[in-house]
Amino acid sequence: MADAGGREFFTTRTVAEALAGFRPRRRTQAQTVALAEALRRVPARPVAAPHALPGFARSTVDGYAVRAADTYGVSEGLPGYLTVTGAVAMGAEPAMTVIPGAAVAMPTGGVIPPGADAVVMIEYTAEVMPGTIEVVRPVAPGDGIVRADEDAREGQEIIAGGRVLRPQDLGMLAAAGVASVSVHARPVVTIFSTGDEVVPPGTATLRPGQVRDATASALAALVADAGGVPVFGGIVPDDPGALEKALRAALASSDVLVVSAGSSVGARDETANAVARLGPPGIWCHGLAIKPGKPTLLAECGSGPDGTPGVPVIGLPGNPRSALVVFRLIGMPLIRLVGGCVTAPAQPSTQARLIRDLPSATGRLDVIQVKVADGVATPLFGASALLSVLTEADGYIVIPGEATGLDAGTEVSVTLYS
Amino acid sequence: MADAGGREFFTTRTVAEALAGFRPRRRTQAQTVALAEALRRVPARPVAAPHALPGFARSTVDGYAVRAADTYGVSEGLPGYLTVTGAVAMGAEPAMTVIPGAAVAMPTGGVIPPGADAVVMIEYTAEVMPGTIEVVRPVAPGDGIVRADEDAREGQEIIAGGRVLRPQDLGMLAAAGVASVSVHARPVVTIFSTGDEVVPPGTATLRPGQVRDATASALAALVADAGGVPVFGGIVPDDPGALEKALRAALASSDVLVVSAGSSVGARDETANAVARLGPPGIWCHGLAIKPGKPTLLAECGSGPDGTPGVPVIGLPGNPRSALVVFRLIGMPLIRLVGGCVTAPAQPSTQARLIRDLPSATGRLDVIQVKVADGVATPLFGASALLSVLTEADGYIVIPGEATGLDAGTEVSVTLYS
Repeated sequence: MADAGGREFFTTRTVAEALAGFRPRRRTQAQTVALAEALRRVPARPVAAPHALPGFARSTVDGYAVRAADTYGVSEGLPGYLTVTGAVAMGAEPAMTVIPGAAVAMPTGGVIPPGADAVVMIEYTAEVMPGTIEVVRPVAPGDGIVRADEDAREGQEIIAGGRVLRPQDLGMLAAAGVASVSVHARPVVTIFSTGDEVVPPGTATLRPGQVRDATASALAALVADAGGVPVFGGIVPDDPGALEKALRAALASSDVLVVSAGSSVGARDETANAVARLGPPGIWCHGLAIKPGKPTLLAECGSGPDGTPGVPVIGLPGNPRSALVVFRLIGMPLIRLVGGCVTAPAQPSTQARLIRDLPSATGRLDVIQVKVADGVATPLFGASALLSVLTEADGYIVIPGEATGLDAGTEVSVTLYS
Repeated sequence: MADAGGREFFTTRTVAEALAGFRPRRRTQAQTVALAEALRRVPARPVAAPHALPGFARSTVDGYAVRAADTYGVSEGLPGYLTVTGAVAMGAEPAMTVIPGAAVAMPTGGVIPPGADAVVMIEYTAEVMPGTIEVVRPVAPGDGIVRADEDAREGQEIIAGGRVLRPQDLGMLAAAGVASVSVHARPVVTIFSTGDEVVPPGTATLRPGQVRDATASALAALVADAGGVPVFGGIVPDDPGALEKALRAALASSDVLVVSAGSSVGARDETANAVARLGPPGIWCHGLAIKPGKPTLLAECGSGPDGTPGVPVIGLPGNPRSALVVFRLIGMPLIRLVGGCVTAPAQPSTQARLIRDLPSATGRLDVIQVKVADGVATPLFGASALLSVLTEADGYIVIPGEATGLDAGTEVSVTLYS
C-alpha cells in the first residue's frame, strides 16, 4: 500500500459518501426489557394498543354529566334547572343513568354515566337548592368528554419502531398496560487503543514519552450516548500481528470494533494491514475528506460463508481530537444503525455569527470547534493532539466540502455539546 | 382555602417567577465516582491538572527534529542538507541531542529530543543518501511541536464545576490521570401518584373507571434525564391523611418529592393540605400561569430547626400531559439545581413556520405540542388527559405570557423531544 516514495495510497471518500454508502447489514437481536429500563432503547417493532384508551368515556372537567339537549338555550339571564340524581366516584362504574332533566355530579376523570352526552363545567352551574342546579351555559354533545378510544383505538400503533423511546412514550406504554417491550440489544462496541506510548488512564506517574489513554474514555462515553455498550479491548503495542490477534479475538463478541490507531503513517498502515487480514468483505475506505480526521478507515470484516453479516470496523486517527470528531460524525451513526435506530435523535444547536474569517479547502469537510457567547461563535484552534480545544468548546461548526471558507459575520449553525 | 362559592384561591405565579424565585437551598452531597461512571455527572468542584499536559514537548507530525536555524533560507531550488543522527521511538525518552547540522527522525507524538526546536514534515524532506536528508522548506522554532504544557499547565482548571461532564471532559480527565472525580450525588426523587382510579401499569385488566398510572413512568424518565434517581413512592388513594403520611415517610430519604395529584379540585386541595402539614417553610405557590398545567403547587417542607434546608415538593396536575409539560419546565430545572448543576444543558431545537394561527391569553404561558416536517410546525390539540398528543409530537413551542397569540407563518423555535 505504498508508492516508491514510501507514502501510502488512500481510498479517500467524503463524509457524505461514507454515511450513505457504508451501511453494514449487521443489526442487533431483539430482547425484552421492562418498561422502567426502556428509556432511549430502540423498539424492534411498532407497539399497538391492546385495547382502546382510555377505555371508557371520561370527564375532562369537574361538573355535571347531562344530556346536552337539556341545556340548549340556557343563559345567565335564563338559566336551566336540572335535578341532581347522583354523583360519580373516581375509579368506579356509575350505577345510575342520566335521564332527561337530570344531572349527575362528575369529578374530572370520572366515568360518564349512561344517558349523558356532555359535562357542564361546575363554573357554569350553581346549586340553587339541595338537589337542584341551575345551568347558565349550554353544552354541545361531546363537550367535557374524552371518548373511550380518543387516546388510542384498539390495535392502533402507539409506538413506532426504530426510534428511541422518549419519556412520554413510556407513559403511553404504561397507560396501555404494556409492561415490557421488545427492543434491539445495545450494540457491543469493543474499543482498542494502539501505540507503544499509550498507558492506562490510571497510571499515576508517566515516563517521558508516555501518554495516558484519553481517547478510549471519551469514545466509551460517545458509544454510550449512541446507545451502545462500550467494552475496553485494551492497549495494543505497536507490534505487527498483535493488533490482528486482538481484533480477531474480539470479533465474535462485538457488534462494532473501534481502533484508536497510532497517529504515525506506519501505525496507520499496521492498522489497515491487521483489519484487511480479518476477512471479507474488507476495507471500504481508508481516508476521509475531513479535517481533522483524514486517516480514518472503515471496514466490514468476518462475514460468514453463509452470508451472515460481518462486523463493522472503524479505524480512527491517533490524535484524540481527530478521533473524537470522526467518531461523532461517522461512528455514532454507525452504532445507531447497528442498534436498529433509523431516526437519528435531534441534536442541540444554535445560530451564531462567526467572529472571524475561516479559510477551508474545497473537497474537504472542515469541523471547527467554537465557543459561543452572546450569539457570537469564536473558533478555537490548536494542534489535533490537544484535548483542551474540545473541552473548551461549546460546540462545532461544519464547513461543507464545496465551500472555500466562511467570512466573518456569517450566520452559522453550531452543533452544541450536551 | 375556599371562598363562599367553594372555589379555591390560587397563589398564582408565572413560570419565570417560579424559575427565578423558587430556589430551595437543598443540594446533594459530594461523592467520588470512577471515571467510567462519570458521564453526565456534575463535578462538585473544578478539577485542576495535577501536572502539565501532555507533560513533554511532542511532535505533531512525522518528520525530523531539527534546529530551525539550520533550515532558514532553504527551498526546492536550494535544499539544505542535514545529517540523520538517530530516530526517536514512540513512548521512549530520546537518548540523543540534536546538534547543529543534525536531524533526528520523529514519529507523530514522539518526544522532541534536546537541542531541537522544530520538526520538519517528512513531505518536505528526502533521504538523498543513507544518513543524509535534504530539506526543501524552512521551519520556524515551534513548528511541528506541541509544548509540554500546551494542553494544560500544572494546576490549571481543566474541568469546571457545576456543569455535566461530557465525553471529551472524561478524555481530558483520563489524560491528566484523574481516575475518579468528586461529583454531586444524584438527587433522589420520590414520585407519588394519587387517585382512587389509578392502578399500577402492570394491571392487565381494568375495571370500568380505572386508569393505569402513566404519569409516574414518564416522570421517572424525566427525572433520570435531569440527573436524578427516580423512586416510586406508590399510588396513594384519595383519603385524607394517607397522602400526608406517605409524603412524611419519604421526606428523610428524598431530595425532591413529586406528587402527581388527582385532577379534580378536591384532590388538589387535599394535596395542598397534606403538603402544608409537612412543616416549614411551606407552600411557595399554588397555581402557575401556564396552560396546560395551572394547578401546580411548589413547596419546600421539613426544614430543620437548625436551618437545614427542607425538601422541595412539586404537586403536579392530574392530567398526564399537563403534568409532563410542567415537569419539563419546572421540575427538571429544580432537580438539576438540587443536583448542583448550575449550567443547564442545551436542548435540541429547530426553527419552523407555524401552519396556522394560535390564539393565546395574555398573562399566561402557553405550551403547544407540534409536529415538525419540512420546516413547518403543525400544532396538535386535544384534551390535557390525552397522552397521544405528546407521543405524536416532535416537540413544543412556548407562547410567552405577554403575547396574545401567534399568526400563521410566524417563524417559531420548536424545542425538540429527544
